[in-house]
Order: sequence, then C-alpha cells, then structure tokens
Amino acid sequence: MKYITDLSTPCLLIEKNKLDKNIQRINQAASKKSLSLRLHLKTVKSVEGALYILPAKDTPIAVSTLKEAEILGKNGITDILYTVAIPPQKLDQVASLIQNGINLKVIVDSLEMAKAVTEYSNKNNLTIPCFIEIDVDGHRSGLTINDEAMLIDIAKQLSQNNQLLGLMAHAGESYSYEDPESLLKSANNEVEASVKIAEMIRSNGINCPEISIGSTPTALTETDQQGATELRAGVCVFFDLFQAGVGVCNVKDIALSVLTTVIGTNSTNDRIMIDAGWMALSRDRGTANQKVDQFYGLVCDESGNLIDGLVVKSVNQEHGIIEMRDTNNGKLPEMPIGTRLRILTNHACATSAQHGKYYLMDGEQICSTWDRFNGW
Amino acid sequence: MKYITDLSTPCLLIEKNKLDKNIQRINQAASKKSLSLRLHLKTVKSVEGALYILPAKDTPIAVSTLKEAEILGKNGITDILYTVAIPPQKLDQVASLIQNGINLKVIVDSLEMAKAVTEYSNKNNLTIPCFIEIDVDGHRSGLTINDEAMLIDIAKQLSQNNQLLGLMAHAGESYSYEDPESLLKSANNEVEASVKIAEMIRSNGINCPEISIGSTPTALTETDQQGATELRAGVCVFFDLFQAGVGVCNVKDIALSVLTTVIGTNSTNDRIMIDAGWMALSRDRGTANQKVDQFYGLVCDESGNLIDGLVVKSVNQEHGIIEMRDTNNGKLPEMPIGTRLRILTNHACATSAQHGKYYLMDGEQICSTWDRFNGW
Repeated sequence: MKYITDLSTPCLLIEKNKLDKNIQRINQAASKKSLSLRLHLKTVKSVEGALYILPAKDTPIAVSTLKEAEILGKNGITDILYTVAIPPQKLDQVASLIQNGINLKVIVDSLEMAKAVTEYSNKNNLTIPCFIEIDVDGHRSGLTINDEAMLIDIAKQLSQNNQLLGLMAHAGESYSYEDPESLLKSANNEVEASVKIAEMIRSNGINCPEISIGSTPTALTETDQQGATELRAGVCVFFDLFQAGVGVCNVKDIALSVLTTVIGTNSTNDRIMIDAGWMALSRDRGTANQKVDQFYGLVCDESGNLIDGLVVKSVNQEHGIIEMRDTNNGKLPEMPIGTRLRILTNHACATSAQHGKYYLMDGEQICSTWDRFNGW
Repeated sequence: MKYITDLSTPCLLIEKNKLDKNIQRINQAASKKSLSLRLHLKTVKSVEGALYILPAKDTPIAVSTLKEAEILGKNGITDILYTVAIPPQKLDQVASLIQNGINLKVIVDSLEMAKAVTEYSNKNNLTIPCFIEIDVDGHRSGLTINDEAMLIDIAKQLSQNNQLLGLMAHAGESYSYEDPESLLKSANNEVEASVKIAEMIRSNGINCPEISIGSTPTALTETDQQGATELRAGVCVFFDLFQAGVGVCNVKDIALSVLTTVIGTNSTNDRIMIDAGWMALSRDRGTANQKVDQFYGLVCDESGNLIDGLVVKSVNQEHGIIEMRDTNNGKLPEMPIGTRLRILTNHACATSAQHGKYYLMDGEQICSTWDRFNGW
C-alpha cells in the first residue's frame, strides 16, 4: 500500500472524495437540465482517469486533440466530439480514426471546410459527422446569427451527405464573469442564441437535430432556457482557483493539488523556496485579472489544510517562492527544509499538462495511479 | 527524406543553422572569459539534443531535475551539477545516481542541509560533492556576504569530508534588464560578489576552489572581472523573444519555433485562429513586462519570415488567436484555412516543455528528430 508520504515531489494529487463529489455534481446538473452530458477530457487526458470518471465506455466525450481521440478510442471510449476546427491537412487523420471504429464528430465554421469535408467524404466513401460551430458571445471562433446566408450554405452543403448533426456553442465569455447574475445571463444566452440559429436552419427545411452547448461556468448555472440537447464541461471534475474565482465552486471543492517540498528560505527569511516551479504548477495566471489574485497558487499543509495568508508569489522553472500575500501583515511561519506542502493552482488543465501521472488519494492512501498523455 | 511540409501541427522546430551559431557563440563567450562552460540542459531535456549540443560526453552540464541527471547520466553524460537545492528526502536518489557512476554535484545553502549531507555521506560511506549556493543580487535563494558566519560554518562542515567544491551563483536579476549598462553591471557583480565570498572562505583556511557563475544574459556579456572558474547558461542555445527583449540576441537568432496551421477566422475577420494554443506555445508571458510586449508570440510564414504587425494576441488550450498588434494600424492579411505559420515564443524552456519531440531543420528538410522528456 502506498501513502502520500511515499511520493517524491513535485507530483500531482487528486483527492478522490472531492473528485467523486464534483463528478456527481456535473451529472446532476446535466440531468436537471434534461441534457445528455458529454464530458470534456482535455483536462484529464488519461485512460485510467477517463474510465474512472465516465459511468460507462459508451458515454459521449469531447476532446481537444486527435491524439486524445486516438488513445481514448483505442481503449473503447468511442463516442467522441473533437472540439477544435480542422484544417484540410487533418482529414486523413480524422478518416483513419473513423475507419478504426471511432464515432468521431468534427466541427466546421466555414463553407470552405464544409466543402472540403464533403468532397473528402465522397472521394473516400465515408461519412464524417459534423457540428457547425456557432459563436454566441464573440469569444473566439464560430458563426453568429448575422452570418445567416453562410450558415444555411454550410448546413445545406453538409446535409447533402447527411453529415450535419447540429450546432456546437461554447460560452467562453462566461470565464470572465464573477457574479451569479452575469453567469445566468451567459447561460441563458448560450441556449437562446444556439436555439435561434438552429430554428433558422430548420426553417429552411434542413435537419439540424443536435444543439451541443457548454462551458464549466454555464453548465453549472441553472437556466430555464430550453432547446439544447447536450452539455459539455471539462474542468468541473477537478476545479481550480480560477473556477473558484468565477464562483462556480469553493476552494474546498478543488480536487487537484501539487505536492511539494520546502528546499530553503532566503537569507532574510521573507521567502520560502519549494521544489514546485512553473514546471510543476504551470505558468497559468488565470486569477491575475480576477477580484482576488491568487498568484501561482494557495498553500496547504500536506493534509490539504489551507495555510492562511501564504501564496506562491513567483516561480522559476523548478523553484516556487512562497511569500505572505500581504507582506505588511504578519511573518512567514517557520518551515524547516523538508516540510511537505500542497499547492492549489490557477488552472487544472494547465497544471495537469505539466505532469505524466496523477496520484488518486483516498485519505492519506494512494489508491490509484493514472498515467497521463499530452501531444497531438 | 522528411520535409517541414510532412509534419503535422502543432509541432516544435529547431533551425540547425541558428542553433549551430548559438552554440558557437556561447562556447566562444566562455573561452574569451577563460571559463569552463557548463551548459544547462533544462531547456533541451533531450538525449539526442544533448549529444548534438555538447562537444563531447565528458563535457560538464547543469540540470534542473534529478530525472535529467538520471537520463543523461545513463547516456554517458556524467559530469552533472544539479542546480536546485535538495531537501533531505532527495538524498537517497542523489546517492543512487552517484553509485551508478554519475559524477553528480549538488548545492546547499543552509547549515541544516550541509549537516544532513555530511551525516548521510558518512552513514552511507560515499562522497556527495557540494557547491554552496550564494546570492549575488537578492534574486531568489542562496547566502550573501552578510551571512559570513553561516557561510564559514557550512564550508567547514562540508570540508570535513572533502565535500566542498566551491560556490555557485546565478545572476537571476539580469533577466529584468534591457540595456547593456545594467547587464554589464550585473555580469561584473556576479563575479565580484562570488569572488569576495570565496576569498572570505579561503581566508579561513578552507579549500574552496571552484566559482560557478552564470545566466544567459550575464554569460553573453563581456566583463573584465576575474576569479570565476566556470560559466553556466542554458536558453542561449535556442534563444527566445524574452532574451531578444533583454538584448542578448536578435529575433533572427531564435532557433526555436512552433509550426502551426490556420483553422479559421472569426466572423468579423479581425482574428485568425491557429491550432497552437497554450498547450503548444506555453502560457509563458515573459515579455509582458518588457519594453515591447510580444503577447504569446510573433508570427512567421512557414519559411520563417516574420509577418509584420501580427502577434498571437491570446490563447486557449488548443486555439491561438492572431490579431494585428495595433488594431488601428492596417488589416489582417488574407490567410486561407490550411495556411501554415511558425510562431516565435516568449520562453524556449517553457515552450519546449509542452512538446515530446523537436524537429531539427536543415533548410526545409528535417534532418533529425529528438525525443524530449519532462518529469522529476
């Protein structure tokens, strides 16, 4: 049996009880909205992790890379939506995944790519199921209701081959909110704007059955708006300081932390050095523009209890520097070299990406080790 | 034969001609200072890369993790300085590396750890060679000339077992400068402050032969100060936008870039989406506080020619968003979906850490593929 005290640092911990609670919460949120849940596995990127988190292998998932589709698909998780628009160069890889039995769906947001996908499918005698990416809040990519003619052209193009599954929206702007009213507005808008476009397409006699929506903040916000069919969310299984800042979780819900060891203090004793720098914590500073800036992370003892007033103020590659958040407010506690700490970080996806393994903790015991992959 | 056009995106490119020139430059800088060069391999983290960059396997190197020491050591590169202070928990791993034939040297900056190392060595009948980490500019960790009594105690403790090799300094503050005068001052100070402490220790009858100094900015700055014995630098083999901002290289010297593909534009055509987000570029924003903020990177065509006025303004996990640096100054060029680009990034160490492979380019041809590792 392995315990947290057996692990060498830095390494990545997941608290099982918090993870379980977070998984239950997102499943309940989808149920309550009567939506099918398509968890985004870009955060986890682990076969063992996916098999733990999903209720069954035939559960729908979303991925951010074709590598995720390939690896998870090989392990029997085959209902996969790839949520990044593809260029023509990736069609061979998409086709190969479909030919290997993966029920892969892609997204397009241009007539150019809708035509490329249709021509490729015809030429290679296969069907590549597509969602049209729509833009509900000006966040990133996708088409809006103002692109009506283009949307109809794309929908017509894709439905020639029965390749149009529906629409996909991502309320990315929800990440910039920190109050329940704005989140509710964003959640309402995500459904409303999507349904409006779907109805416009349907009113042109085109079959457009699915409306896939989601982001962790909107997925966890209750809305009465009806008409979507599917809910996507990813980081909600782990949570992080950024999501706590948005207000969709509490700091105590964060399941992911980095275990680290004190390696020194500086000569004036106003800094504690730890062996977790940006290589272990990531360079993500998502909370920098939130109401409460958490710097590179909050500091807990080895058992996970927050130590008041401490933050990881700065990082180098393999050094983290802990200071008082407010240097006028109290002195650093005594921490002998070798003291073990846990750091809660800004962004679970970015921190996880820095590690090759997750250690799943049940109390002080490591009940499972999950391998993790990156790459494309 | 593989060409750049055969690579799928995103992926990491190294231009051989620039790399070669950068390697030559740091070697010449060390020669000119009459210092032994100890290249820092925390940037490269690749066996093939190390064997390419180093003139011979017995060349001294520095590492930032014991994993680097283990992997490079197994491949015959055995003169290794681990440049992060160790806690007691890492002594077993250090001992095991030494017992496997690696000439591993560690650093200490406290009497507590000097005692722990000595006791561990005595108990296990081995020698762990140590440098004392000194602090020349208040940057991070290490002891200063004001810690005279402590320095003598540590030096005495380590020399009991002939474990004291000398002093190690890192002029970390040099990264915050952008003018030659400050860099020269920093380079002078790095030597001067180190020599002063070494002489103080020597005047106490303690043998302290080595003075290891270095950071890319100070290593590439000429100084007349004498007395150091060894020069360390790492990122200087690749360079990046941050180092160009510091002024120790030009943008055209940057050997490392991320190859990416245009995957769309947004509906108002003021953004170009690429398939390199923070997962491929890293979250590093080192230039944010420099005179010229380069955002998440500068944009080049597939052949590496800078495209004027464009920057990667923002990133999500797998999306990069290219915009005009100055949105009032001209319109985005036409870029059809599928156009391939190359991005120069803020920080070579951070960008490299996001990838599992380097593709070494000789012109348009991929002449070598180097595997890369992370972890501890």
